[in-house]
Amino acid sequence: MAKELKDLANREENYSAWYNDLVVKAGLAEYSAVRGCMVIKPYGYAIWENMHAALDAMFKETGHENAYFPLFIPKSFFSKEASHVEGFAKECAVVTHYRLMNDPDGNGVVVDPDAKLEEELIVRPTSETIIWNTYKGWIQSYRDLPILVNQWANVVRWEMRTRLFLRTAEFLWQEGHTAHETREEALEETARMIGVYRKFAEQWMGVPVIVGHKTENERFAGAEDTMTIEALMQDGKALQSGTSHFLGQNFAKAFDVQFTNRENALDYVWATSWGVSTRLIGALIMAHSDNNGLVLPPKLAPIHVVLIPIYKGEEEYAAAVARLGEIAAELRARGLKVKIDDRDNVRSGFKFAEYELKGVPVRLALGPRDLAAGTIELARRDTLTKETVPQQGLASRIADLMDEIQNSIFDKALKYRDEHITKVDTWDEFVKVLDEKGGFVSAHWDGTVATEVAIKEATKATIRCIPLDAEDEEGKCVFTGNPSHRRVLFARSY
Amino acid sequence: MAKELKDLANREENYSAWYNDLVVKAGLAEYSAVRGCMVIKPYGYAIWENMHAALDAMFKETGHENAYFPLFIPKSFFSKEASHVEGFAKECAVVTHYRLMNDPDGNGVVVDPDAKLEEELIVRPTSETIIWNTYKGWIQSYRDLPILVNQWANVVRWEMRTRLFLRTAEFLWQEGHTAHETREEALEETARMIGVYRKFAEQWMGVPVIVGHKTENERFAGAEDTMTIEALMQDGKALQSGTSHFLGQNFAKAFDVQFTNRENALDYVWATSWGVSTRLIGALIMAHSDNNGLVLPPKLAPIHVVLIPIYKGEEEYAAAVARLGEIAAELRARGLKVKIDDRDNVRSGFKFAEYELKGVPVRLALGPRDLAAGTIELARRDTLTKETVPQQGLASRIADLMDEIQNSIFDKALKYRDEHITKVDTWDEFVKVLDEKGGFVSAHWDGTVATEVAIKEATKATIRCIPLDAEDEEGKCVFTGNPSHRRVLFARSY
Repeated sequence: MAKELKDLANREENYSAWYNDLVVKAGLAEYSAVRGCMVIKPYGYAIWENMHAALDAMFKETGHENAYFPLFIPKSFFSKEASHVEGFAKECAVVTHYRLMNDPDGNGVVVDPDAKLEEELIVRPTSETIIWNTYKGWIQSYRDLPILVNQWANVVRWEMRTRLFLRTAEFLWQEGHTAHETREEALEETARMIGVYRKFAEQWMGVPVIVGHKTENERFAGAEDTMTIEALMQDGKALQSGTSHFLGQNFAKAFDVQFTNRENALDYVWATSWGVSTRLIGALIMAHSDNNGLVLPPKLAPIHVVLIPIYKGEEEYAAAVARLGEIAAELRARGLKVKIDDRDNVRSGFKFAEYELKGVPVRLALGPRDLAAGTIELARRDTLTKETVPQQGLASRIADLMDEIQNSIFDKALKYRDEHITKVDTWDEFVKVLDEKGGFVSAHWDGTVATEVAIKEATKATIRCIPLDAEDEEGKCVFTGNPSHRRVLFARSY
Repeated sequence: MAKELKDLANREENYSAWYNDLVVKAGLAEYSAVRGCMVIKPYGYAIWENMHAALDAMFKETGHENAYFPLFIPKSFFSKEASHVEGFAKECAVVTHYRLMNDPDGNGVVVDPDAKLEEELIVRPTSETIIWNTYKGWIQSYRDLPILVNQWANVVRWEMRTRLFLRTAEFLWQEGHTAHETREEALEETARMIGVYRKFAEQWMGVPVIVGHKTENERFAGAEDTMTIEALMQDGKALQSGTSHFLGQNFAKAFDVQFTNRENALDYVWATSWGVSTRLIGALIMAHSDNNGLVLPPKLAPIHVVLIPIYKGEEEYAAAVARLGEIAAELRARGLKVKIDDRDNVRSGFKFAEYELKGVPVRLALGPRDLAAGTIELARRDTLTKETVPQQGLASRIADLMDEIQNSIFDKALKYRDEHITKVDTWDEFVKVLDEKGGFVSAHWDGTVATEVAIKEATKATIRCIPLDAEDEEGKCVFTGNPSHRRVLFARSY
């Protein structure tokens, strides 16, 4: 029964099938009737709510407020920023009509040809254009700056090849859009927010990330600089997990947003934007989970502790459930999210497998012998270890254990990540590491787009970032042999 | 200066202009570049966040979980439930294409005619259809029931005449969609959730509401019964503030969602849906505000207390701001949301007017005489009264005052509402009360759609609801003279 419940593809044999099985069978998400769009199921959405709450608090601590801008963007807005239109206006959902009518032939409803919009509306793929068009009305003087606004929203990018959470036509995200007096202030904000993302990834998700700058070729369409956090998945592929863009004055110029500065002169406003999305749930799954299912860090787990009665007959059942109720109350008093699974039509082995699949960090099982002895069986999801412990002091022990598990999950991912950053100095090594070991390859690059593109065509590896902490080091480009001044990180990626 | 800042239309002279001025000048929302769509500005969105948090907690206390379903709904889904398509599929945003291309004539981007969707997608006006299509895969047996799911989302209804918050093409809302074994359980859920809405309206918004059933004619398209909460605005018009629908087995039949019941027989699943939206912000504004601006109940106010220094010269400024900082810390320790307005380029009279406009419940002003005497000036927004009080015990006084203001705002609205429920027994009275007094008119109605429609055509008044607490009372229909067994509530409405 437990076997049947899980029945996941094997992670080592077919990572991609394993991932999809896991997302579906753990009840996180599923594909919908609409091509490329997913349904985020309650258990998956609860993870997103936890992410939302933690990030939102961090945004507010750094002075940001939330607002909401329209779902639709007039088509012409996309033409205003030259590189932005290339990056975003192409694969998108286009609203052309505003009414349906009964089919004259009696087959349901059809689009009313008389209800054609004068200008088509694009379902937002990102909101720089509509927001900067709005900011024009909000900004006259330096006294109106900075504007530090974030939006939680859905966006749509018409993707041809989709994967649950990682790449879907519609996804949920937050997008910060800030406006500043000076270049320096906007650059500081860009760095501050990638720092927030790093902190969130490492301290909440337990996913170590490398912070760096994107190359020109990999930059956000319309940005002068894109900072990124790059995580490593257990199959050795990188996953871009959050980006923060310094937009210069590009959007201010495109939407004519000028302000009177402190010298009483007119100047264009400086901008940043930054975002993370439900893609982070994909990163969370792929960074920690195993062949038994999800492994969730306590800080984001919808349930911290599941309590399961072990019994034969009604009397033992009643006694175990009653005691578990008392224990649950003690755990809840410590702020832990607790579930008692008292279903009596399901075997405990099935329950064990189910909560392993769902990645609940701690499982407690209580049987008649435990009741007599004042003990309880405690199992950790991350290590799959179990031990019998006294009921006395249990709540305190479990509260501490949550921190321990959170740290342990991070440390394991960090160890894996650090073991998968490989310095290489020759093209043969470069290809060999990518093919046989995976992970990040730290190599010299001559700084040209042509070389970057050639390497991608040859190996499918891209420059994930120029790490912030990259040291000055003279060397030769691994592909062309031309001079290079520092190493960059390459990887195959999602 | 204060005059210029506010410059609201007069509420008694032009209610509609007053409302719009207030929404825009208090920084709650504004129209966007997209027809009928609004931008919810940070101060307005902060109210929505408070509403969201309170409602979400109440949904979770009543056993509901959140999930997320696609923005897009295949056109054919709307044809599956006969009355639903009439109600919702007509005025909507239709996605017909998924790609733009560079205009061959060089004028920006145009729709790529080769990227036409096989089946058009509708931007959800409400999600019953896509959700019940999904539930089909989730429900096999009574053990899979109930499903108690809520979604926070944006929806689009193509409205021709829009008003900020009250009626916009896109708006934010929550929609609960539940699935049950039995009719009784679904009916209980329908009633439970209208009860949650009532509690929220009265205890958080300070808006008294009448709970009742909609007439057949005013029901949700696809429902067997619609329960509603009806609020009264200060211009005597009613505003439907939340609805909870008993959907019977209509959507289960339309999407073929059957389950094996406890008797091992196949049956269709019973459904409810219920929702409230950003429209509630409109209700909140119109129920309490005055010619000085917003009046916000403390439980939903983004800022509870604003602190303003009164000073001449730098020395007095520094002393006042320092002391206000200490007081702010004491207030924050009580869980109050506090803002110190220490701008030194704005006069205090301007600040007073600004926070009156923004409806901050309490204003504290501290000058040199207060500093010497250990006092502070405390002004209440709801009553516009002020008094000088000791600094000692201030935090406790203000915490208590928040409850007092919350209750006082509700009591005032309740008094107004109760004074505006008028029993009438003749048609002349009916028309006269509607035209001269406004509010709810409690009258007998013969129970037919024809009469309801005729009354609407004659007076623009509709039946807002058949109140839950309507007593059995024999009478004659105010319009036809035909027999009636209870009074219903008519009103002109938003």
